[in-house]
Parts: sequence; C-alpha cells; structure tokens
Amino acid sequence: MPKSMEQIVALCKRRGFIFQNSDIYGGQQGFWDYGPLGTELKRNVRNAWYNTMITQHDELFVPEGAPSAFQMVGIETSIIMNPKVWKASGHYDLFHDFMVDCKSCKSRFRVDHITTRVVLDAATNAPVACETYMKDVENDTGLSKAQQKRLDKATKEYGKPTIEETMPLDSYMKLAGDQQSPPVAQCPDCRGELTDPREFNLMFKTIVGALAGEESTAFLRPETAQGMFVNFKNVVDSSRVKLPFGIAQIGKSFRNEITPRNFIFRSREFEQMEMEFFCRPEESFQWYKYWRDRRFKWYSDLGINPDNLILRDHTEDELSHYSVGTADVEYSYPFMEEGEYGELEGIAHRGDFDLRSHMEGKLVREGNELVVEKDEHGQPRHRGSGKDLTYFDDQTRERFVPHVIEPAAGADRATLAFICEAYTEDEQPDDKGSMQKRTVMKFHPLLAPIKAAVFPLIKKDGMLEKGADLYRQLKRAGIASTYAHQGAIGRRYRQQDEIGTPYCITVDGDTLEDGTVTIRDRDSLQQERVHVDKVVETIRCKLDEYAI
Amino acid sequence: MPKSMEQIVALCKRRGFIFQNSDIYGGQQGFWDYGPLGTELKRNVRNAWYNTMITQHDELFVPEGAPSAFQMVGIETSIIMNPKVWKASGHYDLFHDFMVDCKSCKSRFRVDHITTRVVLDAATNAPVACETYMKDVENDTGLSKAQQKRLDKATKEYGKPTIEETMPLDSYMKLAGDQQSPPVAQCPDCRGELTDPREFNLMFKTIVGALAGEESTAFLRPETAQGMFVNFKNVVDSSRVKLPFGIAQIGKSFRNEITPRNFIFRSREFEQMEMEFFCRPEESFQWYKYWRDRRFKWYSDLGINPDNLILRDHTEDELSHYSVGTADVEYSYPFMEEGEYGELEGIAHRGDFDLRSHMEGKLVREGNELVVEKDEHGQPRHRGSGKDLTYFDDQTRERFVPHVIEPAAGADRATLAFICEAYTEDEQPDDKGSMQKRTVMKFHPLLAPIKAAVFPLIKKDGMLEKGADLYRQLKRAGIASTYAHQGAIGRRYRQQDEIGTPYCITVDGDTLEDGTVTIRDRDSLQQERVHVDKVVETIRCKLDEYAI
Repeated sequence: MPKSMEQIVALCKRRGFIFQNSDIYGGQQGFWDYGPLGTELKRNVRNAWYNTMITQHDELFVPEGAPSAFQMVGIETSIIMNPKVWKASGHYDLFHDFMVDCKSCKSRFRVDHITTRVVLDAATNAPVACETYMKDVENDTGLSKAQQKRLDKATKEYGKPTIEETMPLDSYMKLAGDQQSPPVAQCPDCRGELTDPREFNLMFKTIVGALAGEESTAFLRPETAQGMFVNFKNVVDSSRVKLPFGIAQIGKSFRNEITPRNFIFRSREFEQMEMEFFCRPEESFQWYKYWRDRRFKWYSDLGINPDNLILRDHTEDELSHYSVGTADVEYSYPFMEEGEYGELEGIAHRGDFDLRSHMEGKLVREGNELVVEKDEHGQPRHRGSGKDLTYFDDQTRERFVPHVIEPAAGADRATLAFICEAYTEDEQPDDKGSMQKRTVMKFHPLLAPIKAAVFPLIKKDGMLEKGADLYRQLKRAGIASTYAHQGAIGRRYRQQDEIGTPYCITVDGDTLEDGTVTIRDRDSLQQERVHVDKVVETIRCKLDEYAI
Repeated sequence: MPKSMEQIVALCKRRGFIFQNSDIYGGQQGFWDYGPLGTELKRNVRNAWYNTMITQHDELFVPEGAPSAFQMVGIETSIIMNPKVWKASGHYDLFHDFMVDCKSCKSRFRVDHITTRVVLDAATNAPVACETYMKDVENDTGLSKAQQKRLDKATKEYGKPTIEETMPLDSYMKLAGDQQSPPVAQCPDCRGELTDPREFNLMFKTIVGALAGEESTAFLRPETAQGMFVNFKNVVDSSRVKLPFGIAQIGKSFRNEITPRNFIFRSREFEQMEMEFFCRPEESFQWYKYWRDRRFKWYSDLGINPDNLILRDHTEDELSHYSVGTADVEYSYPFMEEGEYGELEGIAHRGDFDLRSHMEGKLVREGNELVVEKDEHGQPRHRGSGKDLTYFDDQTRERFVPHVIEPAAGADRATLAFICEAYTEDEQPDDKGSMQKRTVMKFHPLLAPIKAAVFPLIKKDGMLEKGADLYRQLKRAGIASTYAHQGAIGRRYRQQDEIGTPYCITVDGDTLEDGTVTIRDRDSLQQERVHVDKVVETIRCKLDEYAI
C-alpha cells in the first residue's frame, strides 16, 4: 500500500518532528522548523554522515573499493561570502530560472513547470488553441475536462485538419511568437494573462553594511561547496593533508525557489552535507566510482530498502558543462508517481573546474576546453582570485590542479527519506489479543531520536523508583532515553512506536521478585527478560550491532 | 604576561583553526571560516553545551541549586522567518544603531563609538573647536598629538576664557545644532565631513521569492530565541513537556554590525546557543538565579580560570524595559584593557514579555505595565499572532502566561574564550635538556580537537605497524586521534602541543620488548609507560575524569 504523504506530514506535526516555520503567523512558504524529536533525528542524520566521513575515518587504511588510503577533514564556512566567489564560480550568471507571472492572480511559475496542450493547423503548424497545466506536481492529471472541452470546441470551429500536441510552455511561446495574434498561453490556475518569461535569481540577495554602495551587495550561499574550494589553499597550508583528501562541511544553504513544495523536499532554506574530494586527475574516475558506490550504500546501511533507492547516472544532456560524470542517489518518495524517484544526493566528477575558476575567473566551454569567459573588451567577465591553487606533489615533483569528486547530500532530504521509509502501518494484538492498527516509525536504531523508554508498570511497589533508577543509568551511559509512568502499558508502547523508539523496557511484578525487566523490540515485538543490572549493557550491545 | 591577540590570531590561521572568510578574494569584513581544527573545536563546544543542556539532562532528578526537576528539549528553526515575528518581537523597530558616514573616505561609524574633545567658551558654552576620536577600540589613546596641537592653537587664537571637555559625538552634535556655524565634528580617520546621524537596521534584509511586492521582504534572524517563542505552543502540544521546561537551540544568527572587530568576538554571522526556560511566574526569580550560577559554572568546568571570568549583574539602567534581571558572564579577552571584560553569555529574566508580544502585538512599557503599542489610529502598531500562548496547569487548574529565563551564549565567543584561555607560552627542556620556548594550547581535554597522537619513534623494527594499529584502535573506540611518523620526536610533540592534543603516545624500542608505549601528558609533561593493550582504556579513563 502506498504511504500517504498527508499522514506522514500530520504525524510529523503531531509528534513534534517538523512544524511549519512561523506557524502561529500563518507560516512562511518554503521554510520549516524541526521540533524536539525532529531535531534529535536530524542531529543523528548529521552525525551519521560526519562520523562516517570524518570522525571515524581511518587515514591509514584502504577502504574496500578505494584506490588508496586518503585523508578527510571538516570545515565550517560562513553563509555570506565575498560576492566575487559567486561571480567566479558561475552562480551569479547561471543560477537563475526563467519564470512567468500571472498578471491577474500574481502567481509565479517556473516556465519549465508549465506544459501546454496545443491544437495546430495540420498544414501550417499555426496554433489554433492552447491550454496550460502544471506538469511538475504531485498528480499530473494533464488537462481538466473543461480544458479538453475548450480544445475540442476550438478544433471543431476551426474546420480545417488539425493535430493536437503537448509541448513545454517555452516551446509554445517560441512558436506563438512567430504568429500574428496567436492563442495566448494562460495561467494554469486562473486563466489570467501571463507575462513574458523573466530571469529570476535563485540566490537570496542582501546588503552587508559597513560601506554604502553596490559593492556591499552579498548573497546567501546557494551551496556549501564553494567554502571548500575557496579554502583549499588555507587547508593545504595549515593541515598535514596530502592528495588524495576530502574537505567536508555541513551547513545551511538558501535558494529562492519559485515553487517550494513537497514538505521539506524542496525548501528555500535547507541544510547540506557536502564533501569535495581532491585527487590526481588520472585517478579521478576511480575515485568518482568509489564515492558513487559508497554514498549509495550509506543510505541502505541506514535502513532504506534498496528497492526504494536507485543510483542513476546522468545522461550526457543532463551533465553540467564541466562534469565528466554525475550520478544521483534517488529515493521513491511517497509524493512521487509509482516508479519515479526524487534526488537524495548527487555525486559529481567536477574535474578541475572549481579550482581553476577561483584562480582564473569564470569559465565557459569552448569546444573541448574550459576557457575564461571574456566580456566585450576582451577582459575576463568575472575575475578569479589570481591566487595559485595548484598542488605540488613532493613525491612526483609535479605541480597540477587537482580534480574534484563531490558527493553533495541534503540533510533535510535524507531526513525526509528516513521518515518516509520508517513510516509503517501494521496490525498488532493489543493487551487482550485482538488486532489493532498501529503506526510505527521503523527508524534505523542509530537514527531513532529516542533509543529506550522505561515504563514502570504500575505506580506502587517501588516500581517508580526502580524505573527512575534505570532511566538514570541509561542517561548516564549516553543512551537517549525517556521515562513514562502514566497510562495503560499498551498505550505507552503505541506512543513510543509512533516515534520509532526501538526498545521499551518495562518494570513489572517480576522485577521486584527476580530483578528482571522486559525489553520489547519495536519491530519484532519480541520481549526478553533481562536483569536490571544488565539492561544498559544489553541495550548498548543491541545498538552496537547497528553501528555503520 | 598578557597574551598577544596577534599571536593567537596567527596561530589560528597557521594551524587551521580560523581563517578569514573568502580569504583568497581579500576577505569579507565580519565573516570568518573555521578550518579543520577549529571545526572540531567548535563542534566540541557545541556538543558540550547541547549535551549538558539536553542530551544528558535527567528530568527526574533535581539538580543542585534548582527549585525542582525539569524537562529540556531541543529544536532547530529556520534563519528566515515570517517578518511579522520581528515586528511583534520589537526587533523591527528597535534593532538599529545610529551612525554617521564620512562624506570623504566613506567610512561608517556608530555614533556612540566616536568621542569628541571640545573647547568651549567658558561663559557661553559655545563650541570653539572640536576634535574626534574612536573610543571603543582596542587602544583608546585619546587625541593624537596633532589633534591636541590644533585644539591648543584654537584656544589660544580665541583669546577669551575657555574650558576643554570630552563628550560623546551625539551630545556634541546636539550642542552644535543650537549654534550658528559651529566647528564641525570631523571624520576621526580622514578629517572629512560627517553626515548627520542616520538609523541603520542591524537586521540583514532579503527578498523572499514567490510573489513580488513589499510583502516578501524578510530578515535574517538576529537571534535564535524567537524560534523558541513562536514554537512554544507547537512544542507544548506535540511533546509531553510540563512546566517548568526549557527549549534550546543552536544556530546561526546575523547582525549587520557597523564595526565588526576583535577577531570572532563581534562578527556579522555568528552562532548562538540559546535556551528559553518557561516557568511559573512566582518561581521565576529562583530559576533566574539557578541558571545564572549554572551557566557561569559551565565555563569554569570547561577550563576557564575563574579569575578570568566575572558574573556581572546589569544595573537598572542597562536592563531592557521588560527584564527584571539580567546578568552577563564575562571573560577578560586579551584585546580588552586590564580589568575589563567582554560578554560571553547573557542570562536574562524576560518575564512574560515574549509570549505576550506574540499573542497581543509589540509591547511597550507604560508606567509599570507592558501594553500593546498603538499607532495614530489607536490600532496596535504591530499585531501579534492572536494565538493563545497561555499554559494550562492541570495540577492547579490555572491558566497563565509562563515567565521566561533565557541563557543566551555565543558559540563563537565561547570558542574564542577557550582559545584565548588555552594559549600558553612556556619553556620546556628539549631532547638534550636545554630549555626551549614552547607554545601550547591547554584546552580542556573535552574540547581539544584531537585527544591522542600516535608516534612510531623510528620507521623500522615494525614500529610503524604497531603505531598504525594503535591509531586504528583509538579511532574505533571513538577517540579523535592522529598519527605522525615523520620528523624528530621533539618536533612532533611541539606540533601537537601547539594544537592542544592532551596525550601523545610513542611506540619505541621498549614496545618491541615488553609491549609498552609511553603516554605523555601535554601539561605536566609526565610520561607513563602503559601496555599497548591498555592504551585505549587508559586514555578513555583519563578523558572520563574530565567529563562534565
């Protein structure tokens, strides 16, 4: 049964995973807040990434599938950078979308999100009628009945032979532009008149203070990656890193998306987990394959069923002008159509594009070469830093510009995928043995916001104190735990199932007699009796089995 | 001997703690990047805060000095919020500085940073001459010799009895405004003409996309606190929290400071660690005292000498119009004058100001009351959300607006204080016993970016392999470690001292014979021999002794 996005979003709000930002003020479109459990979940996602990438990385060891051992370091760079960074990187010129506004309802649409269904004169190809609809939404239903009726009517009235065709809005606008008074493409929402397509810069702009004037315009970073490139030399000079090595960063980025949607999948403020891996050009393709496979595996290691994941190599059309290879890790989010996938992470072979851009200036492709783009005076359109960002290999005595492999993951998208994957509805027997519907978040134990819940069965016979003591022991051992002594035990289990707590520990009558408690497994529902003194160790062992 | 800020900044760059942002492009004033070691240090600072505040908090236990047990949860809210938040909170109206620009060199100054030295007619108080200088800089030297000479000359030429006075720039401008052609206050840098004081909003402004028009102006948050207030109801509704409880958050904030300075002490992009503690009004003063003392202790627990810290209660003048008590934890940063301190953290009793603002609208003080500010039509100047943010106590059956205690710490300022405190120059004997200067960062072991370094003494006799194996064991035990096999052993020690690694482990000739290695303590320089198989356990025990 397909999972319902609506129910997932409702659970996220009800149990404090994710709230609409500025909720009491009616929200702010494209911005989300993480509640108490969402914050712990996302912290666990970030830590799982940072630990495997940096903290636990063993630089003396050759990981399976890697060409050699390598070094890894973390950095944290600021969200606002010198605007020259974005000019040299190409974001300033290229990071925009074309959109149209509806003059009547004021809605704004990405041009490539609108599809037209057009009736054309079969002989001349001149447009006779046109209807528009959104193609990139959850349910692409094509034309409404009313729209189809209008098209049919126009076709009939036209009298001559026609053909009906589907085309993107910009193709239709091009076609219509060659005609005298063609049928206009209307707003898909209200049938109002649309403006001509206009560029819209996806970077949020702001003004940085000390001096007045245009020079102080700055941008919120649309990606964390440039922080790594701009600091390449500082890192090489200040650390003991030698090629190959990676520089990784977790941090917020901002894109002024035209149509933020699908919960936290496409928001305007989001968190990235990016790594730039610098290597010798001749080894770069091997490293690309290594990172592509390793990053895919990370998601399945953390509990995503590989059936719901694909590793999709970009076609030549999709590749950036500088990339010799890019693959996406994609997940079948519940808001996608059956068999469709949405991006979780992109792994790109970026060649020497980035470091060269920051040395020489903004690059463009000329044939097979990347060259500095020139303005009308023959000057670089956007200058680089002029600093030497080459690397000197003291073994081979060579100086060269390293190539870069970039695995770029979204912390929010990963969190969303883990939430969607975890969401499960099943039926389980209640206290009396009759089957009851249950909602359970089957988080990987490493990601679960709370690992263990302690329940004193009843409020007397010292159970409260024994439970409190156990809770305290778990806390001191660094195991995220909770304690609940109110309500029927079945209800307490269901509350923990709904937030994905893998282990529920119940202090009951037997505890007072033989010192044992029950540990109930969220997924198997198996209960085992363990002595109170062994609970911390038992839980610790269970969790260690899930370490990645 | 006072520590030199210059040397600390140089070490931070040289060893990869902190870099100027966009360094290769000449920087971006007021923005900083954390390099590999700085990132680990700051992660440790954040974790030390989050762990003590949230992760390790035991909600069943009454901590020493606290009126009762309490609950704590974390949230993460977005940097861009609905602008109504900042209007109701008062930031939109109040969060600005007055400044003047120099018409000639284009420098911009906060009015309250410029001091004037003025010669006045002793009888009429009319200004005769005026010189300006910056008061709020590292070395307040007063007037230069040239300036004093000019004042003396003007006094002499004036002929009549005069007096010389020091006053703030705005006082002088007020005084001069009543005169005909008074001496003008000049730019302290270039003697150019200054503009009249103008308001400058400390909030960074940006435009959020989907619809054009003024409605989509938004701000980068100048504090994380409002995220907690705006989500108060969502947290209460979705979690099991009951009063008293705290909501905490770590995240970036932005202030368009006129004069960012003193390294990462005052930057335009910075990271906060804030907590809003909600409690019954009648218990609020006890909680205020509890948090004030507890937060002070956190810094000394993490290795800051209490002699370098003060807990300063704000005077009545300094208190915000809504606060009934505020205290600052302050540190004697090396860039301060002897006996002066700079803010590390503020602990404020905020009463019910914030929750009421977000219910009713922007509040102002009228006598002893906080009332909604009205515009000229008698309407609220800035409306609140209209949502009910009261709390219902199901024990006492009372409904009321909780009071709030806010400990607001700066992650960058704390990191800077830990760096400054750690920075030590001493003399230690080298391999041959002669005294050598040494720079050592005496970080608290919990904060040290690297806990252990493994050194194979020489490259033969299997020492490299033994060292590598030990490094691997430490890594797998989750102990941040490094490995270095090149250079003289003394040099390797000094390199680790300079980044504050508490334990250096050397594999030497004895290791091959009896299986022991030396563990050298960074501060005492004591070496102890420990069997290879006991190293992880020994280091783990040493670190556990420092747990807070």
